[in-house]
Amino acid sequence: MISLEESILQGDRLALARLLTQVENDTDDGRAALDALFPHTGKAHLIGITGAPGTGKSSLVNQLALHFRREGKRVAIVAIDPSSPFTGGAVLGDRVRMKDLSGDNGVFIRSMASRGSIGGLAQATANVVQVFDAAGYEIIMIETVGAGQSEVDIAKLAHTTLVVEAPGLGDDIQAIKAGILEIADIMVVNKADRPGAESTEKALKSMLELAHPTQRVFAHHGKYMSAALPIETETNIWIPLIQRTIATDGKGINELAHQIAKHREHLIVSGDWTIRARARLESELDAALQSALMDRFRERVSEDQFNKVMDQVLERSLSPLEAVNMLMNGSLK
Amino acid sequence: MISLEESILQGDRLALARLLTQVENDTDDGRAALDALFPHTGKAHLIGITGAPGTGKSSLVNQLALHFRREGKRVAIVAIDPSSPFTGGAVLGDRVRMKDLSGDNGVFIRSMASRGSIGGLAQATANVVQVFDAAGYEIIMIETVGAGQSEVDIAKLAHTTLVVEAPGLGDDIQAIKAGILEIADIMVVNKADRPGAESTEKALKSMLELAHPTQRVFAHHGKYMSAALPIETETNIWIPLIQRTIATDGKGINELAHQIAKHREHLIVSGDWTIRARARLESELDAALQSALMDRFRERVSEDQFNKVMDQVLERSLSPLEAVNMLMNGSLK
Repeated sequence: MISLEESILQGDRLALARLLTQVENDTDDGRAALDALFPHTGKAHLIGITGAPGTGKSSLVNQLALHFRREGKRVAIVAIDPSSPFTGGAVLGDRVRMKDLSGDNGVFIRSMASRGSIGGLAQATANVVQVFDAAGYEIIMIETVGAGQSEVDIAKLAHTTLVVEAPGLGDDIQAIKAGILEIADIMVVNKADRPGAESTEKALKSMLELAHPTQRVFAHHGKYMSAALPIETETNIWIPLIQRTIATDGKGINELAHQIAKHREHLIVSGDWTIRARARLESELDAALQSALMDRFRERVSEDQFNKVMDQVLERSLSPLEAVNMLMNGSLK
Repeated sequence: MISLEESILQGDRLALARLLTQVENDTDDGRAALDALFPHTGKAHLIGITGAPGTGKSSLVNQLALHFRREGKRVAIVAIDPSSPFTGGAVLGDRVRMKDLSGDNGVFIRSMASRGSIGGLAQATANVVQVFDAAGYEIIMIETVGAGQSEVDIAKLAHTTLVVEAPGLGDDIQAIKAGILEIADIMVVNKADRPGAESTEKALKSMLELAHPTQRVFAHHGKYMSAALPIETETNIWIPLIQRTIATDGKGINELAHQIAKHREHLIVSGDWTIRARARLESELDAALQSALMDRFRERVSEDQFNKVMDQVLERSLSPLEAVNMLMNGSLK
């Protein structure tokens, strides 16, 4: 009998689906398989696509998928709905509409709903993406409903982030847009045949111009500074592009795919590809280290001892700093 | 010479302002003062006020502050703008308009802008609130521009969370609203003299009814489960209230203040006050423990050694799990 990992490396879709579930649920088997698959990762181009409901984001993702399929690439789509459980379903509903892609063995679509914390969702997404990467999917598109911190966290995963806008959706969410602009590598004005496309593009342009003086530096999330970070030079700077599309009839898709390829090239030539990969792995290693350190700590300090200290903190007879010192130095009764 | 902490306990506003800056910048002195002030904390009622731009949130906060002042309570206002630096300024602009409160020594207003990570902002806010608490401010209002994860994080700080709506702002941000509804203890329909107030209230009511089957359980963020968590009973459940106000002429403010007082009473009677305090302190202790464990780890493993392991992970010759094991067991060359 071959292992789950081997089945996945051999292209078994059923095994892939099974592992994705395990990885999403963060089971021990899932974690072990992730670790075993790790040597096979690092090859896929991760593309984040974010935008508010109504921007036609899902159609755009479908069209891009069809385009990449024509280029002979294997494509995975991870659709994320971080909204609350009782409003959910929109993303899943969209998936049902993806008739164009069904039956194609070179495409794998996975929907993920929010479960628990947003931090948890970002981690689960990272793991799911890693599985697709190991399974040989060259293009992995991560689709999110654009609002809030979860999208920003998930965008950090992607090599290339597309922010999708559409004319006539109202501009009362400026603050959100501003946050999202900062993560955009390519801005897409979809539904470009609608009235107002011109002014949407103009608004984006002026926001970009406003944002441009601020240097885009990839945030370093690990606790250790990488020794390999090069000094930012002119050639390293990517100025976000604006691309018009009409996803429903495929207009602008070739051009958009070309921009995506250009961005990938930029990342590789500038060294950003490696820097991002390193930063991502560092923060992963940091998280794993922290949880290992915490596990080891728990072996030494019982829940009972911890609760006793906690009681004293709650009564204000111990300060948090004193409590930490007590717990760390084992000076517990 | 007396210490900064003592000056603050004695009501020195200049010393308070200075410490707030230190705490915001997370300096060593700031941290030490926070720890020294810790025994004096745990008394204030923390009220979170969140709502989209245009809901009249700031006027509402002003009116509430005036109300609490008439009750003889000392009031601190922490205004947070988590939006990106180049769109910032709205909250600060609002503060300038707070003429009613200026010159009153029983009121202290502090604006905080986003700096770096949102997690960092939540932590800085928690620390600023703790300083106000120790300084004897009985009411601390934390005002946020309602959108996204940052508000949810900051709401976790508050004992009572108000979500402010206004008629005619459009309903295209349902997903965000849904997330925010889950944190609301009191829903405020401000600008209630405007057309559409009726239907705004109705929409909120139906969302609340939709949300109600889902039991509201206070999220436990610490790594340890508290032994003292009681089983949720009928009497423990708070069903969010809806209150109409017209902040500009003070209508509904007395009633709103009454609801806030009722919620505080509910928290105390149901035991939720203590449970929340414990959960908050536990997650604080957890964070402090994690950083102490990481510090101790760094004393054993040099940056150089860490980077060498990292290089091997980047080359895929070590898996993250293997790397953690190597780093933890000191089996480094």
